[in-house]
Amino acid sequence: MPKIRKVLVANRGEIAIRVMRTCKDLGIATVAVYSEADRSALHVRTADQAYFVGPPPSRESYLVQERILEVAKQSGADAIHPGYGFLSENASFVRACEKAGITFIGPPASAMDAMGEKTRARANMIKAGVPVVPGTTEPIATIEEAREYAQKIGFPIMLKAAGGGGGKGMRRVEGMADFDSAWRSAKSEAMSSFGNDAVYIEKYLEKPHHVEIQVFADQYGNTIHLNERECSAQRRHQKVVEETPSPILTAEMRAKMGEVAVKAAKAVNYVGAGTVEFLVDVHRNFYFLEMNTRLQVEHPVTEWVTGLDLVAMQIRAAEGEKLPLFEAPAPRGHAIEVRVYAEDPARNFMPSPGKIHALRVPSGPNVRDDSGVFAGFTVPNFYDPMISKLSVWGATREEAIARAKRALSEYVVKGITTNIRYLHGILSHPEFVGGDYDTSFLTRQHTALLGEEDPKLSEVALLASTLHAFQRDQKRAKTLPSRSGGGDTSGRISPWRLALKSRRR
Amino acid sequence: MPKIRKVLVANRGEIAIRVMRTCKDLGIATVAVYSEADRSALHVRTADQAYFVGPPPSRESYLVQERILEVAKQSGADAIHPGYGFLSENASFVRACEKAGITFIGPPASAMDAMGEKTRARANMIKAGVPVVPGTTEPIATIEEAREYAQKIGFPIMLKAAGGGGGKGMRRVEGMADFDSAWRSAKSEAMSSFGNDAVYIEKYLEKPHHVEIQVFADQYGNTIHLNERECSAQRRHQKVVEETPSPILTAEMRAKMGEVAVKAAKAVNYVGAGTVEFLVDVHRNFYFLEMNTRLQVEHPVTEWVTGLDLVAMQIRAAEGEKLPLFEAPAPRGHAIEVRVYAEDPARNFMPSPGKIHALRVPSGPNVRDDSGVFAGFTVPNFYDPMISKLSVWGATREEAIARAKRALSEYVVKGITTNIRYLHGILSHPEFVGGDYDTSFLTRQHTALLGEEDPKLSEVALLASTLHAFQRDQKRAKTLPSRSGGGDTSGRISPWRLALKSRRR
Repeated sequence: MPKIRKVLVANRGEIAIRVMRTCKDLGIATVAVYSEADRSALHVRTADQAYFVGPPPSRESYLVQERILEVAKQSGADAIHPGYGFLSENASFVRACEKAGITFIGPPASAMDAMGEKTRARANMIKAGVPVVPGTTEPIATIEEAREYAQKIGFPIMLKAAGGGGGKGMRRVEGMADFDSAWRSAKSEAMSSFGNDAVYIEKYLEKPHHVEIQVFADQYGNTIHLNERECSAQRRHQKVVEETPSPILTAEMRAKMGEVAVKAAKAVNYVGAGTVEFLVDVHRNFYFLEMNTRLQVEHPVTEWVTGLDLVAMQIRAAEGEKLPLFEAPAPRGHAIEVRVYAEDPARNFMPSPGKIHALRVPSGPNVRDDSGVFAGFTVPNFYDPMISKLSVWGATREEAIARAKRALSEYVVKGITTNIRYLHGILSHPEFVGGDYDTSFLTRQHTALLGEEDPKLSEVALLASTLHAFQRDQKRAKTLPSRSGGGDTSGRISPWRLALKSRRR
Repeated sequence: MPKIRKVLVANRGEIAIRVMRTCKDLGIATVAVYSEADRSALHVRTADQAYFVGPPPSRESYLVQERILEVAKQSGADAIHPGYGFLSENASFVRACEKAGITFIGPPASAMDAMGEKTRARANMIKAGVPVVPGTTEPIATIEEAREYAQKIGFPIMLKAAGGGGGKGMRRVEGMADFDSAWRSAKSEAMSSFGNDAVYIEKYLEKPHHVEIQVFADQYGNTIHLNERECSAQRRHQKVVEETPSPILTAEMRAKMGEVAVKAAKAVNYVGAGTVEFLVDVHRNFYFLEMNTRLQVEHPVTEWVTGLDLVAMQIRAAEGEKLPLFEAPAPRGHAIEVRVYAEDPARNFMPSPGKIHALRVPSGPNVRDDSGVFAGFTVPNFYDPMISKLSVWGATREEAIARAKRALSEYVVKGITTNIRYLHGILSHPEFVGGDYDTSFLTRQHTALLGEEDPKLSEVALLASTLHAFQRDQKRAKTLPSRSGGGDTSGRISPWRLALKSRRR
């Protein structure tokens, strides 16, 4: 296969820029696409060429396959990187690329098909010998069969309506004493909700952890795993904080889960970067949840500890290069990522689009900021409000947590509300610090996390506004009056500090 | 020794911020000092407390020992970190700290004394069995003795006036044929310049490389080295680009030089982070040049490949902790640092202080920016004009070079002139890429390096101005006119691209 020379990045925001950075490192030209709302976006400015593809919302621009392919042809791009979201897991788009003779940087359409739909993925995994959450995907005919099955997989269990979702016809059952009444009410609710009283049973996992394994495969069936990411800090099934290694995994579990993840990828002839997600229960049994057939948002933590560039590996795999490694490099240290959103945690995480008036991002040793915005940019209200991913590395988990908190305190974002203080609250919470936090953590501790008042952080917010006022004053004064005596240090603190001090009272 | 709880950072700019970042990571409070010119500087804003210490120049503020110590007492700091430059290698200040009962984060005064003055350091190293550049530090009495000595150490040699420096009474001699006349003219110039015709001989090293070894010692004599840094890209003895590993070092040389560096440090009972600088000749012999008894500007490259935090190690050593390692961690990959200056390479590197109107610093995978400035800050003309240190990591040297170039192209610095394009020129030069560049590289290739016209970089400069104009226009228009048809992608490029295109003609 020929070398890729020009990549169209069919995405926006931080992930488009992250992909373009690696392209530039590799000497590959880049093409951006942008919607009306993204005319002045950073990804447009980062690319070598940029093409307008339509108005928001995404279905009229970023999701219009024909338009993206048209731009690829016009710009002379020989490959498309989909980022995550948008067209990244769309098998029909992969086929359209193939037909157009353009390399899709990602897995083959067949692997997406096999993993895309949950029940099909589950069936495929069972066939491959990958453990899935115990349960029946088929409806159960009689209460006797149901009782028997519940007994077999063990309580607690979930009864779920086969005809539809949204919590309707769903019952959690703690033991046999409650089984019959739950069965009946689930069935009747299922009937009234979906006109179908079919119900099936799934084991209910208590306090599960979300732990995922990064896998990577070349076109020749060589498949490895690159260890895990702990992603249990979730809000409404959205990851907020991710880390590696997982504080709850033993070396033995890591090896076993890695082996199973590789088996899952091989079962669908996977190629490129993919992630096999598992739920881990209190007894440290793990069950296949789903596979994400694309680059994951939280891939930087894996890059930190392995020293690998996953986007570069994706590109090389798409070019037909053989995998140069036969196992994961021994991970070094600990990495944490937090997702910085333009949203207001105090107002039920309502997105807060708008113009960023001032922006300073954290930097220094072992701090990485993958940002999609800049000072002067207006965050549009049409897309995911994530504006930045902050990731840090530390020799130990303790060091990484401290560094992440310090780095968060360095952000200066003016003009929009962000979840920075909330993230700081998560990193400071004893449950997170302890390391054994399950997927219910953020929901259970919601109030505590919102209440987190860190003096350093209020200082940062205050700093931003005081700094602004101070600069404005300076501008007015043009030159600073010189201090008499010059060397007066008698307890003097800077004007800026004074402002801080007086405000505090 | 008790734990350090509050550190006064007796410095400014990027190094003050870098030290404060680690302090915050460790939960240690920080105190800044600032001059009149630095009232609104970033290090003042980064610290927990800040004290005014006097007007510029430094000798009236940052260098006033009593004032710094006074602030330490007033603020309740129990330790002082000197950064590099300023008071960092001042033995009398170390003694003053001791007397005041404040921990100096650095080596003891005695180690500074032993390494501070060049001829004394040389004598100490000879005694310790460390190879130094062959020569006589004592003047030579007769021309016969001189001839004999020159023969012994081998040509080319340097004749140097014992009575003074500045190039007066200095002659490079290629062979015996030129010796007598050079000897006579050196002596007569020495006499007329310094009233003293005494001359001594030193071996002249051809095309030397500057390679230095990072050493680290605790208070109990445990001393290790953390491998080397190649620092041959120098202009007027000022390092501009540094990297590790050195492309010219074999594993055997590394081990030998490391061993010698440890010997040098032990000979002076060194404590903390120090750097033993060597010159390496074409035959790959190495000679002690000097020891820097402080944290080095270019320490980030060592941090990248070892994963260590040298500032944290300095603090722990000052607290009396034992060194937790017995040898350097096996280095991983390759790291490069470039020094970004507010200066104009085209105008003989004249400093270009002034207000930074807009600033965007590079980020993303494996990029670290240690900056001392921010948008809106006025770079004062009283201090070293370095505004930022960019360092990058790559799995290979080739990857690191490509990444450094890409990262440089991401800088947007408006309002002042910088050496960013010049740095890009260095990284692109075949001699640098080849890896075997000696200390004469930057001087020899001066014109070529200035001439480097990288299309990407002109694009960045253009980008900055076009972006500015575009934002201004947007501000005026308030809302963008919507495009008819919306989906027009017929070769269209963004308005910004169009501006670029038209300008290029």
